[in-house]
This record gives sequence, structure tokens and C-alpha cells, in this order.
Amino acid sequence: MIKKILVVLTGIVIWFVPPVWDISTQAWHLFAVFFSTILAVLINAFPILLASLFALASVVLTGTLDVKLAFSGFSESFMLLILSAFLVAKAVIKSGLGRRVAMLLIRRFGKNTLRLAYCIAVTDTLIAPAIPSNTARSGILFPIVNALALDTGSHPTPDSRKTTGSYLMMCGITSLTISSALWMTAMAGNLITVEIAQQFGVHMTFGGWFLAASLPCIIGLIILPYALYIYFPPGLKETPEAMQAADSTLQQMGPMNKKEWITLLVFLGMVTMWGLAGIVNINTAIVGILGLAMLIATGVYRLEYLRAEGGDALETYIWFSILYMLSSQLNDLGFMHTIGVQISGLLQDLHWISAYLLLTILYVAIHYLFVSQTAQLLALFAVFLEVAILAGVPAALMAFMLAFATNYFSVITPQASTGNVIFIGSGYLLPGEVYRAGGMVTVINLIIFLLATPWILWVAS
Amino acid sequence: MIKKILVVLTGIVIWFVPPVWDISTQAWHLFAVFFSTILAVLINAFPILLASLFALASVVLTGTLDVKLAFSGFSESFMLLILSAFLVAKAVIKSGLGRRVAMLLIRRFGKNTLRLAYCIAVTDTLIAPAIPSNTARSGILFPIVNALALDTGSHPTPDSRKTTGSYLMMCGITSLTISSALWMTAMAGNLITVEIAQQFGVHMTFGGWFLAASLPCIIGLIILPYALYIYFPPGLKETPEAMQAADSTLQQMGPMNKKEWITLLVFLGMVTMWGLAGIVNINTAIVGILGLAMLIATGVYRLEYLRAEGGDALETYIWFSILYMLSSQLNDLGFMHTIGVQISGLLQDLHWISAYLLLTILYVAIHYLFVSQTAQLLALFAVFLEVAILAGVPAALMAFMLAFATNYFSVITPQASTGNVIFIGSGYLLPGEVYRAGGMVTVINLIIFLLATPWILWVAS
Repeated sequence: MIKKILVVLTGIVIWFVPPVWDISTQAWHLFAVFFSTILAVLINAFPILLASLFALASVVLTGTLDVKLAFSGFSESFMLLILSAFLVAKAVIKSGLGRRVAMLLIRRFGKNTLRLAYCIAVTDTLIAPAIPSNTARSGILFPIVNALALDTGSHPTPDSRKTTGSYLMMCGITSLTISSALWMTAMAGNLITVEIAQQFGVHMTFGGWFLAASLPCIIGLIILPYALYIYFPPGLKETPEAMQAADSTLQQMGPMNKKEWITLLVFLGMVTMWGLAGIVNINTAIVGILGLAMLIATGVYRLEYLRAEGGDALETYIWFSILYMLSSQLNDLGFMHTIGVQISGLLQDLHWISAYLLLTILYVAIHYLFVSQTAQLLALFAVFLEVAILAGVPAALMAFMLAFATNYFSVITPQASTGNVIFIGSGYLLPGEVYRAGGMVTVINLIIFLLATPWILWVAS
Repeated sequence: MIKKILVVLTGIVIWFVPPVWDISTQAWHLFAVFFSTILAVLINAFPILLASLFALASVVLTGTLDVKLAFSGFSESFMLLILSAFLVAKAVIKSGLGRRVAMLLIRRFGKNTLRLAYCIAVTDTLIAPAIPSNTARSGILFPIVNALALDTGSHPTPDSRKTTGSYLMMCGITSLTISSALWMTAMAGNLITVEIAQQFGVHMTFGGWFLAASLPCIIGLIILPYALYIYFPPGLKETPEAMQAADSTLQQMGPMNKKEWITLLVFLGMVTMWGLAGIVNINTAIVGILGLAMLIATGVYRLEYLRAEGGDALETYIWFSILYMLSSQLNDLGFMHTIGVQISGLLQDLHWISAYLLLTILYVAIHYLFVSQTAQLLALFAVFLEVAILAGVPAALMAFMLAFATNYFSVITPQASTGNVIFIGSGYLLPGEVYRAGGMVTVINLIIFLLATPWILWVAS
């Protein structure tokens, strides 16, 4: 109760404080709602769905936002990508294919939970250059991680989720921070980064990006699953009998049945189209929707299943649409840009190394306010890069650091990336846990990348 | 399989036929997709969700519609009203309040299923003038009808849904055709009608509308539940022991508990705000969302319930958003207007009585193509009224007939009104059944209103 009052009071106080700088009253009011919503989730005053519903009602009833804008998040293309990928993942599990892949992985790497985590991260990293959307990639990874959790006996219930599921899911979204940073073509925003950097005279190539990212990413890939293993440990660590059990399960399952084949074909078709989406103009959400339709049409995923188990997909879709809308409206109203300019303006007189460090840290920390990696990229990348150059930071170094940060800050909050959303919707991870474990992952990534500064400077120049 | 091929072939044939009149190729292609989608549902080739998903993928992949437009239905205000009303209805059931109201009704009127149907229709008609949105009103009626079905032993399963549920649900949406036509303030579109009619010199008042509508509406109210009782009969007709059982159940339930009181208060608050929405500028969807948030915040409706039973709400939300978008895009591209002008142009030389009859019938029949009552109103009301006046039909007569038709054609297809959607999403009604029973209701309503022509002519002049 105290927490709830605190959240409401915080919102009211910010609301009535006069806006600073040249922020409009509308943007300031929106910030009051958004900030208290994020706070509510952070301190666990309200569940994320409820906080979002109240936020939506508040911005409309106070006249802060027009209804049309307030509902705009629900028709965002990637919201429908998340929704369809979420449902396709359920079909992959239902068909039995998820189970088979999980069993194959467990038979090979299942001696302990840590190995499985590395296995997820390596798979993600290897397929990443071909899948230019981290949301789509999370749609590929999630059913595998979900099947791994289920088949090591972890279900999304309060008493069972922590045995292996929570840990593996957290490793899944952590893995996306690295795989997206490593390859220029692993996240849609990276291509925008390249274009903006170009305007500042920094020419990024596929090979140059990979080379600069390789050292910190490989270190991250080695350290992070282990760091989570210590800090956010699975309840079940050693599974010596799992490999044996998986082997006999696979023998019981026999060869792949018709449903599994169909699912495999549809899934490979989706992966191919998602891969092509960078080259040809295919909307990634439509790929997801078509894949889902194919799985329903072939009877792999029956409508009864959707009715019985679509509730969590709906929940995720609602809260994320609302939070995304709040953040992007805040951005559109110039709030984010003003904050960026003000903060970076304070750093102009520092030595370039101090400016470089502070700008990087601030760029990462400010992502607490964003519900989309690309939105922050568009709002702040150029501002931060410009200030850094004025302060004497080598342009290529700063451009690469901000580019990498745009990827690895994706677990700083549950809503920090569209790639997280399906994993959190699974019921294995609580928002509060993501704030804590994701915060730690972000700090580790930040340190690794900052320590790699000489390498990046050397490679990029 | 033959049905599926037929649907796809129909779509392809229309697609490649050159468009008639001045319809653009884009509008024609959209019509090809829309028509085959409606056909697929009508002949039961695909379930409505699957047909909609394929339609969505088709219009985007063929480049007929831009992605942004194709997804626009998902953020329509009333889509979120339907979604929230659907979830609030589940909360009303879950709280036990739905059960209590149902038991009170059964104890009083439960001797047979027909009486319960009349009871639903009368309740709806009495509250209608105060609820200026038939979608919102369906959100009020639905939990009561749902509880009545459940408490007479009918569940949304293939073997149990037809005992009472299907019939009562069908009576629920049929009742909305009458209650909306009777009162000027019972449907949002009616107020638009009044404005358009004004431009043609027809002054409609609350009292005048009520008087003109009263005779045909009262006849409809008497005939329709009985007609459905014959044509779309409940499996369970006589329930002589139900009143006794309800009485003892009520005694067992004891006085209202805390959850029921909270639900009642929230629900009354929502009804009040929905009622005020006509006077003050309150968005009806936000009322639904706030109500849902209150029920979640007070623990009446727990998030676990949403996760476990939100799947059918999601299903309904998806297909209706897509069909609505297709229909409204078809409208925006001028397709509907062209059809209206062409059809009505053919009637210009007829005697006014023939023109009047044909225009009314066509106006109703053309609603097969619309997924919103208001959209058809905006597209065709003025065109049809103008043609009628040119052909010598008394302006007030035609204006009232079209105004009433805009309400009573709402059950001609499952997607013909936002008011139907929750009822169909319940699982008690199959789309094919609504096409058949709803078609019959529409024909009966059409006949009743046409027979009432002298009355309307007398009252309106």
C-alpha cells in the first residue's frame, strides 16, 4: 500500500512541478505519468499490465494525449511481430518440434544448466548476421529456450519457474545484447546507425563493425552466462542424468512426425523471409502472421489452443503497446531530445576521455526512459556524437561505442527492447528480476566495452 | 478442400477481372480479398480468424495496402472498447456477481428459456436511451447473458453450447437491433444520422424518433425472440425446476460479498460514464480500460485469470480488427460510394414507392460488405437519401427508414456490428449460425419496418 501511494504521489508531484528548460507542459505531464509507471514496475507497486492500463487511462482522461495517439501503439508493426512470434512459439512447442530440438541439445550439452545457457548464446550469435531484426530473432530463440526449460522440468509457475526456466530465459535476452552488437546486420537499428555515422564522416563496413565488436563481444559471450549463473542462479545446476534421459526420450519419440515436419518447414520459411527482410522489402510482422496462419491452416496449431493459451500473449501485447506509445510520444514531443542536449551540454568543457566516458554511461543510463532501441538511436545518437566530437573524442570511437551501446542496453529494463518482450511474457521472468539481473548485465557489458576502448580505437582508425 | 479452392479461385478471378465503373485497381484488388474472405467465413471454408490472417497477409504481400494502413484496425478506439468490455465481462462472471444477477433473473423469469430471452430484450431496451453506444451496451448485456447461459448449464463447448447459450446469445445481439433503433441516443451513429438528415431538411427530435420507431420496434421486440425460438431453438426449453433451484442457490450464496460489491460499484461507474459519454466528451474505450484496471487493482480479476482465459478475447480482437480495416479501407478508396451511386442511379426513374422499397432493401443488403454500422452510414446514407428524394420519396420517411435500417441490419453478418463481437467471441455462436439466424432476423425486421411505413409516414409528417 505504501508503495502504491508513493507511486501516485511521485506522479502528482512531478505533474505540478513547473517544467524545466524548454519542455512543454504536455511533455512534462506525459513524463509524470511515464515516470511513475516505470517506478511502479521497478518497485513492484503494480504489475506491469496494471500500471500500463492506469497510465493509458490517465493520459487520456487528463487530456494529455489525444485518444488516437494514445492507442497508436496497438497497431505498430513490431507489436504485431511480437504477437505473432509469441503465438508461433506456442505452435512450435505444441507440435513437438520444440521438444525434439530441446532434447537434441540436452543430449549433447545437457550435463549442466550452464552449458545449455552457452549453447543458447552461441546459437543466437551464429544465426544473428542473417536475421536483421532482434525481435524476429527472439521469436526464433524463444521456442527453443522455452522447450529447454519445460524439458528440464521447469514450468512457468511460482515454485517451478526458477529451477532452470528463469535463468535460461534471462540468458536468452542477455545473449541478444551480444549477438546484436556483434553484427551490423543483426539489428534493424544498426543500419540506421551506419547512416547517421556516415554524416559525421565515420564509414562503418560490415567487416569493420565485426572487427571492432569482436573482442568485447567474445569476452561478453564468455562472461555473461557465467555471471548470471552466479548472480541469478538456476535452482537446478547439475543435471547429470539429463543427457541419458534425453537420449531415451528421443528414442521413444521416434522419427519426426508430420506436424513436426510442417512446423519445421514453416519455421525455416519464416527464418528465410526474416533473413531476406534486410534485402527485399518484406514486413517482418507479415512474415510472422503468414507463418501463424500456415500453422493454423495445417492444423498444427488449433484455434482451441489459441483460445486456451493466448491470454499471456494478449497481456504482453497490451502492456508493451502502451509503454511503447508513452515513450515514443515523449520522444515526439521533444522531451528526450531536450534532455539529451541539456545533459551533453554540461560535458562540453571536459577532457575528451572524461567526456567519452560520461557520454557513454549517460547514453546507456538514459535508456531507462526508452521503450525502443531504435527510438533512442533516432533521438540521441546524433546529439551525443556531435557533442563528443566537439569535446575532441575521436569520431569513429564514439560512433562505435554508441552503436554497440544501442544494442547492449537492451536488457536494462523489461521494456527496453522488443526482443525481451516474448521472454518476459512467458511467465518465467518477473519484471523486477529483469530490472535487477538486466541492470547487472548492462553494467558488465558497459565495463567490457569501455575496457575495449583501445582495441576499438586501434581497429577503427 | 473444395470449399477452400473455391474461395481462393473466387479471389483470383475477381482480382484479374478489370474493375467496373470508375473503381480504382487498388480498390478492386482489395474488394477481391475482402469478398473472398467473407465468402470463406460464409461457406465455412476457413474459421474467421484464419480467413482474416490470410486476408491481412494478402493485402500487404501483394502491395494492395501499405503496412501502416493494414494494421490500423488494431488501434481503433472501439476495438479497445470491445477488448476491455470482453475482459470486464469475464471479471463480472468471476466475481460471482454475474451468477447472482442470473439467479435473480432465473428465480423470477426462469420457468422457460423463452422468458429469459424476453427478459434480456426488455432489460436492453430499457437501459438503451442512457447508453449511447451499442458496443458499450453489449458490454453490459453480455456478462448477464453469459451468466444466464452458464447457470442454466450451458457451456461454450460443442455439446453443451446449444442447450441455452447459443439461443440466448443470439437473442442478445438481436435485442440490440431493436433497442438501438428505438432510441435516438442508443447508438453513436444515430446522432450522425440526425445531422445528415438535417442537411436534407428533415428535423429529427428525440421524441419524434421514438414515436416513429415505437410501433415497429415493439412488434419486433414481441416477434423476434419467439422467431428465434422456432428457427434457432434452444436445446433446453422448459426449465420448471430452475426457479426453485435458483432460489436455493441464492440462499446458499448468502449476502453479497466484498468482490461482488466492488464489481457492482465499478460496473455501475462504467455504466454511468458510458451514459455520460453522449453529453461529456469521455472516450468509451477508456471507460472500459479504467473499469478493467479497477477490477484488476482490487483483486476481483486476477492477472492469472487473464492469462488463463484471455485467449478468446485475443482471437476476437485480431479478426475483427482485420475485417474492420478491410471494410473501412474499401470505403476510403471510394468503392462503397461508387457502388451506392451506381445502384441508386438505376432506380431514379421508378415510381417513388418502388424506389423507396428497393432503396431500403438494397441499403440493408449492402451491409454484407460493411464491418461497421457507422461506416455505412457515413458512406451511403446521404447518397441513398438524395436519390430517394429525387425519385419523389418523402424525405422524412426515407430518412427514418434508413436510420432504423442502420440499426437493425446489425446482425446480418457476425462482423456487421461492434455490438456482436463479444457475443460471438464467447464461443456460443459460430459465424455460420449468425449468418443464417441473423439473416432471418434482418429479413423479419425489414418486413416489420416496411409494413410500418404508413405509421412512420403519418408520425413523421
